[in-house]
Amino acid sequence: MTDFDYCVVGGGFAGLTAALRLEQAGRSVAVLEARDRLGGRTFTEMRADGCWIDRGGAWIGPGQDRIHALMNEFGVRSYRQYTDGEAMMVLDGKQHRYTGTIPWTMSPWASMNLGASFAELGHMCKSIPLEAPWEAKKAGKWDQMSLAQWLDRSVWSKPAHDLLETAIAGSYTSAASEVSMLFALYQMASGGGPNFVFGIVGGSQDARPVGGMGAIYGPMAAELGDSIHLSQPVHGIEQDAHGVTVYTRGATLRARRVIVAVPLAIAGQIRYEPMLPVDRSLLHQRVPSGSIIKISVLYDEPFWRRDGLSGQSAAPGSPATITIDACTDTGRPGILCVISEGPVARQLGRLDAAERRTAILRELVTRFGDRAGSPVDFVEQDWSAERYSGGGMLSHTPTGVLTQFGHALREPCGRVHWAGTESSAVMCGWVDGAVRSGERAASEVQQHQLAAV
Amino acid sequence: MTDFDYCVVGGGFAGLTAALRLEQAGRSVAVLEARDRLGGRTFTEMRADGCWIDRGGAWIGPGQDRIHALMNEFGVRSYRQYTDGEAMMVLDGKQHRYTGTIPWTMSPWASMNLGASFAELGHMCKSIPLEAPWEAKKAGKWDQMSLAQWLDRSVWSKPAHDLLETAIAGSYTSAASEVSMLFALYQMASGGGPNFVFGIVGGSQDARPVGGMGAIYGPMAAELGDSIHLSQPVHGIEQDAHGVTVYTRGATLRARRVIVAVPLAIAGQIRYEPMLPVDRSLLHQRVPSGSIIKISVLYDEPFWRRDGLSGQSAAPGSPATITIDACTDTGRPGILCVISEGPVARQLGRLDAAERRTAILRELVTRFGDRAGSPVDFVEQDWSAERYSGGGMLSHTPTGVLTQFGHALREPCGRVHWAGTESSAVMCGWVDGAVRSGERAASEVQQHQLAAV
Repeated sequence: MTDFDYCVVGGGFAGLTAALRLEQAGRSVAVLEARDRLGGRTFTEMRADGCWIDRGGAWIGPGQDRIHALMNEFGVRSYRQYTDGEAMMVLDGKQHRYTGTIPWTMSPWASMNLGASFAELGHMCKSIPLEAPWEAKKAGKWDQMSLAQWLDRSVWSKPAHDLLETAIAGSYTSAASEVSMLFALYQMASGGGPNFVFGIVGGSQDARPVGGMGAIYGPMAAELGDSIHLSQPVHGIEQDAHGVTVYTRGATLRARRVIVAVPLAIAGQIRYEPMLPVDRSLLHQRVPSGSIIKISVLYDEPFWRRDGLSGQSAAPGSPATITIDACTDTGRPGILCVISEGPVARQLGRLDAAERRTAILRELVTRFGDRAGSPVDFVEQDWSAERYSGGGMLSHTPTGVLTQFGHALREPCGRVHWAGTESSAVMCGWVDGAVRSGERAASEVQQHQLAAV
Repeated sequence: MTDFDYCVVGGGFAGLTAALRLEQAGRSVAVLEARDRLGGRTFTEMRADGCWIDRGGAWIGPGQDRIHALMNEFGVRSYRQYTDGEAMMVLDGKQHRYTGTIPWTMSPWASMNLGASFAELGHMCKSIPLEAPWEAKKAGKWDQMSLAQWLDRSVWSKPAHDLLETAIAGSYTSAASEVSMLFALYQMASGGGPNFVFGIVGGSQDARPVGGMGAIYGPMAAELGDSIHLSQPVHGIEQDAHGVTVYTRGATLRARRVIVAVPLAIAGQIRYEPMLPVDRSLLHQRVPSGSIIKISVLYDEPFWRRDGLSGQSAAPGSPATITIDACTDTGRPGILCVISEGPVARQLGRLDAAERRTAILRELVTRFGDRAGSPVDFVEQDWSAERYSGGGMLSHTPTGVLTQFGHALREPCGRVHWAGTESSAVMCGWVDGAVRSGERAASEVQQHQLAAV
């Protein structure tokens, strides 16, 4: 490794997309990935029997045009998320079965409150300018306020409150008390509003790529070939008048510009020389990652389907907070994906593996019957402990940060450019946002080069 | 550098105190400091004429017993902060002169509101258990709420609001919207309540060491001698069953245990092997440093004293937000210390040096007359740009963090122990808290050793 046109730090979707677009434009690129695998906050495990498991980000939805474009490019098909049958909501130990997005069976008051809260969120989202959420009319007020406070004030029905807290705070994989209401609204707006974010059919969990996310990032990596260097954590980036020098544990590399495509908390662990502008330096201290454990529980077949259940369940406070059918397109084996987020994920993470398995299976049995207690495999992915994600899946800004430091999310710092889903104004927090950010960064660095010629 | 009993990362007051106590107990210690100077967030500049300037933390007050103990140990005397004459408050361009802590001249309503708010803060502080603020009865509620919200709700008089915001948010060197109300109360309580925190006489700015903070850390360093290694940024700490290995750019060092005595945002830039427990890893992403520029403006003499002014002024929103007399014990030359914090500091930091000087002097002239416009020197310290402080002067926790992650602030992680003022239950945020944290960490590591023998 010596001289390249561009260097890309991070081999998740943002970094791989940036590198791909640059190579397609005839530039030489080096992608430096800290882990011994690609995919970043997505991670598809291919199993001996041909079954695949998405241990991280997994879904795609309408409006996510850039991930769809990549899929078309590489001939990856999608299949619909299984949603036949009834979903389940567990509130205070009581199971409610329902169809559609909202569990109307809770109680009329709770349902009404939930519906009204959804509508209010949608209305608030509409006032957020995606490219500059800090310019929203009420930005100052909303950025002072935590999501927890909005929930406490606006959602007076306890079941509705618990459900929305699980859905929203869960999607930030952090406690609602940590998340700025302005950030929550911005992130929802960037996906098109709450109906998209929390919806399955026609929403953010509408479909999945056949073969999992790895069916997309695998071929991207194959096209990039020798440009990819695994197990190369970058610890220093120096820039001068002519280019950048990038330091990994074993190598030193020179390029015109560098694209840093890792979560912000991880970008903050790199030493920049000269120091980054103050706002960017301080931003790196202010966009924490959340906590999430994603468990794939494998059975011979998706037995819940025959029982008229979709596999989808939500149980606020339970260690198995969310479940969803995660079978591949063939429907065999049966895969139930269990997701625990935020504080619950950290509690669960403190148990030893056997205790965790027992706790999770006990919950699944109460929801899906005895067969749920005898899986053929139990595959855990604790993103909180992923050193090079810095936690998972999504970062958030605490109160007061977006209005003060938001402008630094994607402003290049000299020859250092920023990618990663958190830097995308559209679909911020989804794989599609990562792809968009990679394409934007690739275009940014090339504009500079053209200007120089 | 090879084998030591203990390694200390960081040569501020926390690290130096820890190392000193360990050497005094007969242990061998290596102190690794990233900068080419000691003192951390304190920094005393000795000038050719014998005058000294504290470019960082400077004051001491009653109840700060551990810094006083250190001063006694090294024979350092203190002198009272100059407070004769009138202080000044500038609100909407209008100057109010007053004596005492509260500018009663504002308006009866504003004064009453300010007094009542102070009383309420004091009352709230009393309910905070310093060792575990997250166990306060209202911890959950206060940790959801930003300091900005409390100010907006409780302080209805605009002048009182602006003044309190400047005083409180200023002391966190961050916008009030960023700071958890629980953290604000905890930090105030750790200093004994708002009267201490915001008071000068009998409060946290009661006195200063003769010779500045350097008159304390200098002799400590002299006693530690060859144990101190400057310009040694630590980038990795590995622990195993027998001890720790600490990596700097040029050296590798082995010790039984390590004390990390740097701000949390900086501690997060070190690679730990094995990974730290999840709560500590995530805490490192959640305790950002603030922004502060401290400017010492030197004149032949403290001319403001003859005009009946104490030199103390507060002007919310002005680039010279706070001024205070910062003369040495001899009263010559005249030194006016100008402090800008949080968002104002970052705005000021973006100006070039000449613009900044012009902006500051213009402000000083309006407050202290024409003589203020012709200083003999103008010494700037922008802590926001101090790489190895990660900002300055104080870190804070955003909403939701103290209740979830507070327990990890000083819990050792195997052979890695934590010091730094933010880890002190008493005088958290002051130099005294740093000293206490160093002594606590020194005692912690030795208890382990004794237990092992």
